[in-house]
Amino acid sequence: MSGPGAAERRAAERSQGRAPGLSEALLAEVAEALATGAHDLATGLVAALHPADLADLLEQLDAADRARLVTALGEQLPADTLVYLDGEVRAGLVEELGPGVAARIVARLDTDDAVDLLSDLAPALQRAILQALPLSERAFLEQGLAFPEYSAGRLMQREFVALPDYWTVGQAIDFLRGHEDLPDDFYELFIVDVRFRPVGAVPLSRLVRSRREVPLRSLTMKQLHLVPAEMDQEQVAFLFKQYGLVSAPVVSPEGRLLGMITVDDVVDVIDEEAEDDLLKLGGVSETDVFASPLETARRRVPWLLVSMISATLGATVIDAFGASIEQLVALAVLMPISAALGGNAGVQTLAVVVRGLAVKELGRANASKILGKELQVGLLNGTAIMVVAFTLTLVWFGMFDLALVFAVSILCTVTIAALIGVTVPLLLHRFGFDPAIASSVFVTPTIDAIGFLMFLSLATFWLL
Amino acid sequence: MSGPGAAERRAAERSQGRAPGLSEALLAEVAEALATGAHDLATGLVAALHPADLADLLEQLDAADRARLVTALGEQLPADTLVYLDGEVRAGLVEELGPGVAARIVARLDTDDAVDLLSDLAPALQRAILQALPLSERAFLEQGLAFPEYSAGRLMQREFVALPDYWTVGQAIDFLRGHEDLPDDFYELFIVDVRFRPVGAVPLSRLVRSRREVPLRSLTMKQLHLVPAEMDQEQVAFLFKQYGLVSAPVVSPEGRLLGMITVDDVVDVIDEEAEDDLLKLGGVSETDVFASPLETARRRVPWLLVSMISATLGATVIDAFGASIEQLVALAVLMPISAALGGNAGVQTLAVVVRGLAVKELGRANASKILGKELQVGLLNGTAIMVVAFTLTLVWFGMFDLALVFAVSILCTVTIAALIGVTVPLLLHRFGFDPAIASSVFVTPTIDAIGFLMFLSLATFWLL
Repeated sequence: MSGPGAAERRAAERSQGRAPGLSEALLAEVAEALATGAHDLATGLVAALHPADLADLLEQLDAADRARLVTALGEQLPADTLVYLDGEVRAGLVEELGPGVAARIVARLDTDDAVDLLSDLAPALQRAILQALPLSERAFLEQGLAFPEYSAGRLMQREFVALPDYWTVGQAIDFLRGHEDLPDDFYELFIVDVRFRPVGAVPLSRLVRSRREVPLRSLTMKQLHLVPAEMDQEQVAFLFKQYGLVSAPVVSPEGRLLGMITVDDVVDVIDEEAEDDLLKLGGVSETDVFASPLETARRRVPWLLVSMISATLGATVIDAFGASIEQLVALAVLMPISAALGGNAGVQTLAVVVRGLAVKELGRANASKILGKELQVGLLNGTAIMVVAFTLTLVWFGMFDLALVFAVSILCTVTIAALIGVTVPLLLHRFGFDPAIASSVFVTPTIDAIGFLMFLSLATFWLL
Repeated sequence: MSGPGAAERRAAERSQGRAPGLSEALLAEVAEALATGAHDLATGLVAALHPADLADLLEQLDAADRARLVTALGEQLPADTLVYLDGEVRAGLVEELGPGVAARIVARLDTDDAVDLLSDLAPALQRAILQALPLSERAFLEQGLAFPEYSAGRLMQREFVALPDYWTVGQAIDFLRGHEDLPDDFYELFIVDVRFRPVGAVPLSRLVRSRREVPLRSLTMKQLHLVPAEMDQEQVAFLFKQYGLVSAPVVSPEGRLLGMITVDDVVDVIDEEAEDDLLKLGGVSETDVFASPLETARRRVPWLLVSMISATLGATVIDAFGASIEQLVALAVLMPISAALGGNAGVQTLAVVVRGLAVKELGRANASKILGKELQVGLLNGTAIMVVAFTLTLVWFGMFDLALVFAVSILCTVTIAALIGVTVPLLLHRFGFDPAIASSVFVTPTIDAIGFLMFLSLATFWLL
């Protein structure tokens, strides 16, 4: 597929099958029932929903209807629903429920989900809920909350299965059949040494295929991927993606087994990290669909200010050539076209390089190769676009020399845009910064300014 | 976290721990060994690498070194390495290996990976490899290739475990212990009726915890999520994310069990779909790190043309006010600042709305609420930025009236940008198009043109 057309075709194909997940029709029925005070009807309508779909439904209701539905559901509200809710909606809801009800819900969750829920709350409410919990539960959650945000320690659950390395398949199965306090879902057994350090992982699919007398030791995976508790979640996500993991043991600095991370949590992280890159390229720091207008404005305004300061560069260039524009207003007319082309060419390269760095297709070894390639692409497309720009200008203004100057400056601008689009993120990456911040906010205005400088100086010395 | 600062802080924290995956030092050593003809040293260095890391290493070598290393590895090259390679690099490599060697590799892969590998190849090479395969294998692969691109049928593997619904745990375990041709990895048993239609799924963690006499029927998950073979991969990804699945049965239109999709394939899809949105927002249709310069240029040039045509709108507005600019060149100087602010405000909203629609936080029910909110955000930030714009203009040009006109037009532009940024993707979504194509290529130039119109007309009627 290529070009804007393919994307549309695909979207149209897609919309033919009924989408999975919450239906808009059900949502409308529930809203209607709540509006007319038919609370029993509303709770009946949502009774069969998966907690994830119920969470989507709650998010789309307004705050008053949401509170009404949650109150009407009472103890029927599945604890997992809170796990799936957006952080800001959830914080509001927990506040409304009060620490007593919230603590009963938290007690029913896996530790990773409970930690995630608590971490979004105001400190006072968080303390109140923790104090309402049994001491044993509370200790695990407080330990989880002590790990830095975005670390593996925050993602892990304390529920896992660890067995000694001298056990057999039969002993393992007897143990699993005899114990009640096991995790809800697990895909591997971790094998530990006498110091509780993981030495191997046995997938359940291997366990069930092996005879009772087989030692667990002989069933472990070839490679064991340990996750240090302080590892950043982006690296955890990379580990799972790279090696196709479904779960991984989390260890302390001494190598002791602390917890387990499962793939469903990592899927959420991959999604968040992708969101992060998308939003940064768009000049926003985080999704804010459910934040208040004032809070949203406060979060976005720094990017606008940066954008304004960067744009001043281009304005300064234009100011320096004020006399030329006074003589030939067509220059001012053509400038937005130069800016759009340079900006588009730059952001195209930027998006590909940011992505290539994220998935490790790009590194120090092939950086200069990519630079050379992008330079060629810039020259090729610059040449193609130059022909169109020349024709457009000639037809519009009937001035051959102006068309020529504009065409040449477009070629230079598109080529330089490609160079900037590839070097800026590579340099940021090299020096340990996140290449996604090289967003349109910085790169585009710089390319604009260079484009203006090229066009206006060429025009001044050639035409005037 | 908020503002551009937080992202940098996090990136810096991140770079402190050693990153998992391929090390740049090893890559340099291998390249050095290949350059000096020490092929044995090179194969020794990569012997312990995971196939995914070896694939990354091959991607970053230049084509000649890549061929040298693959030849030196010979049969030592793990079949899975090809699965992890970028499509274009892989196609080149398979061509070099020839259909005989390639068929031996394909025969060792799971059907989903084999189909994925074959689908990227030239038709002649694809046929040659298929003909070199045993007939039974070939039939499955041809069936897989017959499903449309981006469908569940392409993602599924034909290897799975399906058992009758009247069996017990003991029968299941005996069956699993006695059979060799089972999938490498599986996390659930599918329970089928007499017509081979899935009626339930039993997670292995439940199987191993239950006594031999327990009927499988009593161990199935509460909800069974069936995937029709023709379902789009984006909807499959949504299903896995929404319900935290690790595997799911794929069914024919008659409801018969055809195959299984596992979470590792879905992780790749989630990654691809995120890439899709990121690249579309940047005005590129697909990642092209490994495509040739000519091919890359060909794919990107349509976007540049669209960008040029859209920018002509703004140019036409400026042209209409040529006389005003001749009188007051400061107008031309301030235009890029107006464009940058409008563009940034618009893309901020666009990125948040595109993302909100993708994760179903946004829908018809709360569309008008979001519109109202974004309008407020636009007004708030427009007001904040207006003050800065007023001061900047006053200091720069010393003209109170010009500063006032520019400030007012900035307020209007930023507010309208927010409105356009929210309505365009919502409308595209409503009419079944992919909202991510409402990218900077269309939205930004429109906002620019409106901003120019506002500023230049206000200035013409007020100042001149």
